[in-house]
Amino acid sequence: MARPLNRYRTDLRDFRFLLFEQFDLPSLLGKAPFEEWGRGECDMVLEEVYRFVREVTGPLNAVGDTQGCRIEEGRVKTPEGFKEAWDKVWDAGWAKISHSSETGGQDAPKMLWAFTEELFSGSNTSFMMYVMLTLNAASLIEHFGTDAQRKRYLPPMMNGQAGGTMCLTEAQAGSDVGASRTTATRNENGTYRIKGTKIFISGGDHDLADNVVHLVLARIEDAEPGTKGLSLFLVPRIRYNDDGSLGAYNDVQVTSIEHKMGINGSATCVLQFGDHDNCIGEVVGGVEHQGIRQMFQMMNAARIAVGIQGLSVAAASYLASVDYARERKQGSSIGRFKDALAPRVPIIEHPNIRRDLLDMKAKVEGTRALIMKLTLHMDHLRALGGRDDESAAYHQGQVDLLTPLVKGYATEQGFKIPARAIELFGGHGFLKDHPVEQYTRDARVFSIYEGTNFVQSMDLASRKLGQAGGEIARAFFRDVQTFIDQNTDQPALREVIAHLKEAKDACESCAKRFHQWFRAGEIAHIPLSSEPFLTAMSELAVGWLLAEQAAISIARLAETSETHPDYAFYTGKKYAADYFAHNVLGTVAYRVNRLQAADTSPMTIPDAAFTTG
Amino acid sequence: MARPLNRYRTDLRDFRFLLFEQFDLPSLLGKAPFEEWGRGECDMVLEEVYRFVREVTGPLNAVGDTQGCRIEEGRVKTPEGFKEAWDKVWDAGWAKISHSSETGGQDAPKMLWAFTEELFSGSNTSFMMYVMLTLNAASLIEHFGTDAQRKRYLPPMMNGQAGGTMCLTEAQAGSDVGASRTTATRNENGTYRIKGTKIFISGGDHDLADNVVHLVLARIEDAEPGTKGLSLFLVPRIRYNDDGSLGAYNDVQVTSIEHKMGINGSATCVLQFGDHDNCIGEVVGGVEHQGIRQMFQMMNAARIAVGIQGLSVAAASYLASVDYARERKQGSSIGRFKDALAPRVPIIEHPNIRRDLLDMKAKVEGTRALIMKLTLHMDHLRALGGRDDESAAYHQGQVDLLTPLVKGYATEQGFKIPARAIELFGGHGFLKDHPVEQYTRDARVFSIYEGTNFVQSMDLASRKLGQAGGEIARAFFRDVQTFIDQNTDQPALREVIAHLKEAKDACESCAKRFHQWFRAGEIAHIPLSSEPFLTAMSELAVGWLLAEQAAISIARLAETSETHPDYAFYTGKKYAADYFAHNVLGTVAYRVNRLQAADTSPMTIPDAAFTTG
Repeated sequence: MARPLNRYRTDLRDFRFLLFEQFDLPSLLGKAPFEEWGRGECDMVLEEVYRFVREVTGPLNAVGDTQGCRIEEGRVKTPEGFKEAWDKVWDAGWAKISHSSETGGQDAPKMLWAFTEELFSGSNTSFMMYVMLTLNAASLIEHFGTDAQRKRYLPPMMNGQAGGTMCLTEAQAGSDVGASRTTATRNENGTYRIKGTKIFISGGDHDLADNVVHLVLARIEDAEPGTKGLSLFLVPRIRYNDDGSLGAYNDVQVTSIEHKMGINGSATCVLQFGDHDNCIGEVVGGVEHQGIRQMFQMMNAARIAVGIQGLSVAAASYLASVDYARERKQGSSIGRFKDALAPRVPIIEHPNIRRDLLDMKAKVEGTRALIMKLTLHMDHLRALGGRDDESAAYHQGQVDLLTPLVKGYATEQGFKIPARAIELFGGHGFLKDHPVEQYTRDARVFSIYEGTNFVQSMDLASRKLGQAGGEIARAFFRDVQTFIDQNTDQPALREVIAHLKEAKDACESCAKRFHQWFRAGEIAHIPLSSEPFLTAMSELAVGWLLAEQAAISIARLAETSETHPDYAFYTGKKYAADYFAHNVLGTVAYRVNRLQAADTSPMTIPDAAFTTG
Repeated sequence: MARPLNRYRTDLRDFRFLLFEQFDLPSLLGKAPFEEWGRGECDMVLEEVYRFVREVTGPLNAVGDTQGCRIEEGRVKTPEGFKEAWDKVWDAGWAKISHSSETGGQDAPKMLWAFTEELFSGSNTSFMMYVMLTLNAASLIEHFGTDAQRKRYLPPMMNGQAGGTMCLTEAQAGSDVGASRTTATRNENGTYRIKGTKIFISGGDHDLADNVVHLVLARIEDAEPGTKGLSLFLVPRIRYNDDGSLGAYNDVQVTSIEHKMGINGSATCVLQFGDHDNCIGEVVGGVEHQGIRQMFQMMNAARIAVGIQGLSVAAASYLASVDYARERKQGSSIGRFKDALAPRVPIIEHPNIRRDLLDMKAKVEGTRALIMKLTLHMDHLRALGGRDDESAAYHQGQVDLLTPLVKGYATEQGFKIPARAIELFGGHGFLKDHPVEQYTRDARVFSIYEGTNFVQSMDLASRKLGQAGGEIARAFFRDVQTFIDQNTDQPALREVIAHLKEAKDACESCAKRFHQWFRAGEIAHIPLSSEPFLTAMSELAVGWLLAEQAAISIARLAETSETHPDYAFYTGKKYAADYFAHNVLGTVAYRVNRLQAADTSPMTIPDAAFTTG
């Protein structure tokens, strides 16, 4: 079937706004650890990465979807063109710019990583997964590995010679990681024999690189049950010789790949470790029983990356929709609906289409601001250079708090926005001629992997809210309140601020209710309410950041000529904030207050009453 | 790729409740036009159709999805097994039981049709489209055709020798049917030469039957522009000789089929009529310029059928989810979440899973009740035997009012429920091993074809609300109010009734607001608000019917032993009504009142502000 190339589109102006106008990244540039980074360098990355993804990864998106992956003689074959793109990605180095220069990166701010990640994922989600997982695994090894491990594994993983994976899930242990049964047996030389079957391993095998380095959670024979007894092992598909050359095959087999709804270009593998009792692994950092803690660092990075996946297809769907609405003529203008001879107009003139576009715009740009805010906190942390003070605790706390919001909200919108965009394209949206149907299928997994959104919501409600005695949540609400206080006198924002204040107070009060439920032992209320609360908290954060964008834009509009392209840009920011405040933020208090009057009918209905015959 | 057979499941008990307990169908049975139909006959249909779809159509659902259709030598090849199933369907006759006995049906109540349609569509949506479109086209010919047309076309279309289609859409005329450009030129013998290209023609060609009879909207040379100038033509792929045998090929070509997100077993065709100036059609009923009126009768039937498609996959997704939640063990019970050694429990024990299941149950069973209510009105109309009195006007009015609700709400849930079910299955839900991902893809088109849900919402807001001077809407609100009045003293329903009353008052007031907007010329408010209003009205109707189910069930519970399976069934009904009232109906007034304070930001944002860059 002939499918058009994915003419991937983004809006660089929005990234420039985030990097240089909304957030204080500029105050961090030009000094450690970002000595090499100024505005010119950032601008260059924006332009060059956009050019790169349009030329290299974007055109392979539909190809990967159509061809999918297959197993040939025990190896995974990726779609046509993926290998060439993989080589180009590692050559160009964009994907790893925010990795440390010691490992081959360029120490770029994480905000730029969020940008490159969005463009790579938006242009080709499946392809980017191989790269992202490799880089995340490399980060883990850099952070927790021994010197010898770093020396052995990082060079090939940072130059495209080896892929990387994270192997957590087993058939009986999905969200419940502690139920893993994969075992590790100590060898006399300090290595371990690994044995077990892992499922849902993205990039578990492929022909892009010579080797794949697996990070495998397993339980050493005498370890305790549950997550605390797990250790993390480095298990290369091919062992490395001491000189860094490839040695003997390890006992790791890819036994099958899954047939999925989407991300068909990404191989989702079942991996068998130690079927012949000859699978050798080394424990990460040389320390046992630290697996969950080590894996969580990788998981947190992966969760943010999955949030970016959601944003990336939502953003691409939005821009495809605007372009389509400007081109596609259908129906007459609303004022002339009775006149059969009235000229056909572009559908962007129709009120319902305009509402859908503004809805998408506000959610996409607000989600992007939320992700950028999170990475800005990471950049502040890095700029603090490991200092362990109040400021570091604040930024780390906000990273911790915002991570489930980013994973949850961005992946929720990552599915809803493409699915809605299909409607805007009408019957054509259901066809493979336009990218929105693939975005919808690809996106359906984002809310599931790397911890389902329910898991994210429980992370927020039962861990992050209480973390540091509740201080990280209080700091977040204080940040919102500070913005409110600074803008109460701004007449153009009066309604937005009123909605923001009401939403903030309601979320704060609901957070207290979660504490009460917990203390009172009314535990079931927490999982019943955590998902809608995660959404509400995310909407509060998004509404706040959109309001901040509007405040800046109102000031800029006063000094911008109406004929300058920025005039339309700033005007759009004001509309996005107004729309979101009226239609989303303005409903948060109502919904959150309803959560507090918890409906327990799901707990009391007898199992047998769900279905009979 | 190996995919499991679709073990299609339904809940016959719910159908029995609707047919024999909630609605007054029994009062219509055993007399004209349902002389042949008693409870025993209905029961037999339930059992036999369920057996049939499990054996014949269900096992082909994944096959159709995997294989899709293709064009070979100018003909569409359907997936393996479809031809055999087609023959069995026409042999068995279940699909046409509610058609008139003169045309080969059995004059069964439309409520039974709603049942058979749900089971056929739920077990295999793609396959059923060929059958449904044929039957709808046959109904149109029966209703509007001349005697000669009925005699020529109905026998082959009612016995499986010919398929039927409806050909409306053209590339430049989607929702805007009046922009059609296909032409009809009068021949001297009373026939017409048809010329034009139609797109998105479901079942536009196939190898299931020897022939396909197309119903084609076209404009006769001197007709006026817009929808009023359209006429409807019968255009067989192969012409019939006077003795009913197949004659010469007509000038109709299938030039391509679409590659789609779902319903891959259903061929979506581009048809070229009259490329060689030799496409002969006859005008339906021998009357020109009646095309839209005639087509609308078929469209209305098709809209209800598409609503049933939505319900059918939602219901199948719900039952698959309950079964999975009962089997799948994951995590420990909420009370023992800190104990790593606590036994793993079936996920139906987890609060969030229970909430999702109850949410699905209430929406599925409520939507089914709404569809059954609509078909009950159709059965009352038929029982009135063409009398043109107040009672007929009432039932016809309710059919007209409820049709956009059924199309809109059932297709909205038809996508949302399978998409949510994927989450309940976790990573496994994203795989082709379970039917929910196919249901989600198949369902994505339901809100688009046969009039998008936006078109449905405008039909409600700008036509049905004002129809008969507003009387059909008033009659609907009166029906709801009557139920409220009859149940105000029922203590077990106090909260449900309070929510119902509040939702009803809000919808009624919002309906008046639409009139005001229209009269004041504030037209843009209508398309901006019509979709959320359609949802709210549907939820009011669903909440009312679920409350009625609860009222009946509360009475039955008092006389049912706790060990009887009906006890669980009636208990479930009460929970579904409580849940829906608290979580959905209870929010209708809030949402509808917000609509009335219309946000016009989508109208005032300048086009250029949507995107720059």
